[in-house]
Amino acid sequence: MNNLPKLQIALDDQMLSEAIKTMQLVYKEIDIIEIGTILCCSEGMSTVKNLKAMYPDKIILADIKIADAGEILSKMVFDAGADWTTVICCAPIDTVKAALKEAKKRNKDIQIELTGSWTFEQAKQWKEVGVEQVVYHRGRDAQAAGQTWDVHDLNNIERLINMGFKVSVTGGITVKDLKLFKDMAINIFIAGRSIRDSKDPLEAAKEFKTAIKKYWG
Amino acid sequence: MNNLPKLQIALDDQMLSEAIKTMQLVYKEIDIIEIGTILCCSEGMSTVKNLKAMYPDKIILADIKIADAGEILSKMVFDAGADWTTVICCAPIDTVKAALKEAKKRNKDIQIELTGSWTFEQAKQWKEVGVEQVVYHRGRDAQAAGQTWDVHDLNNIERLINMGFKVSVTGGITVKDLKLFKDMAINIFIAGRSIRDSKDPLEAAKEFKTAIKKYWG
Repeated sequence: MNNLPKLQIALDDQMLSEAIKTMQLVYKEIDIIEIGTILCCSEGMSTVKNLKAMYPDKIILADIKIADAGEILSKMVFDAGADWTTVICCAPIDTVKAALKEAKKRNKDIQIELTGSWTFEQAKQWKEVGVEQVVYHRGRDAQAAGQTWDVHDLNNIERLINMGFKVSVTGGITVKDLKLFKDMAINIFIAGRSIRDSKDPLEAAKEFKTAIKKYWG
Repeated sequence: MNNLPKLQIALDDQMLSEAIKTMQLVYKEIDIIEIGTILCCSEGMSTVKNLKAMYPDKIILADIKIADAGEILSKMVFDAGADWTTVICCAPIDTVKAALKEAKKRNKDIQIELTGSWTFEQAKQWKEVGVEQVVYHRGRDAQAAGQTWDVHDLNNIERLINMGFKVSVTGGITVKDLKLFKDMAINIFIAGRSIRDSKDPLEAAKEFKTAIKKYWG
């Protein structure tokens, strides 16, 4: 494989100040800064503007999970400084197209967020309209209900990669989980609480990077 | 029918100040104030707090379309003062349950937002876990692509009502469209641009109320 999987931190705080505290500790190890849905909804687009101002060289992803109004919402996050944004998997294909069009105009990108119900029939449609990135998601509530990474997840991820998508993987991922994916060309691993809630977030981020080099280097 | 359909205004502005200007004109005719996804993402939960402070006697709906993290997100909007919030139709059932639990604790409610792909199989699940409200949505991007209200929409709405759901109807609704629904026990009509962008928003809201009384009174 040519490229190492990248490391994305999910900032799912309710206050920008908390997200900033985490970033100041870990920024050196992070490739992509995700401003989580929680933080976007809590404090709005100023979170995107301010984090882009602080980290202009990082990829800033505003995870707003667009379901409708693809043009207005994607313009809004891109104008605020986001490089990437997300569209929820059940969104009408016209919404996907509208958001993708705004992204491509600006040399930016969207990702389809695979949270909850979706089908490979839809995935084929996303591919046809030019979507390049998807986020494979083991939901927070599904995790809480005891759902773990299983063969079903791994098969789905492999199938998406084989379709030509760049795949991000997320959902309570720990360093120990990385080995499960070692034979696949994962584009991005997203870690949230396993870095943020660690006693030493920088060390936790470094452990992710070390494991990524070990399995994909 | 016992009750007249209620009128909900969708405040899909990017600035709270614009939403406030509309509300000051129309508040007398409005039953439910929807703080749209655009406004929630743009300025955050302060929009919910401030509109609840201005209109404590109205039902405040924060349309954040929860897809995951049902407990955290619903707590966040309810703590900000929202009476209702929305969960997107593709959300895992555990997310629906988590959001509904937080709502019921507070004598508040959630609505399932039917934007994009969903099935009656899912609707059965929502019913089983205790969901009472759904929002039938003709998407903004679908409208722009020329999709109109048709027999398919009307049949779906009737079927949802027959399943026992309280149904809100939205998606570029004009006063003229109301007649299409006259034989159905619609719970709420949601109007956005047809009121906000009118030369006389109060008059436009009054026309909705007059038509509602005419067809359902």
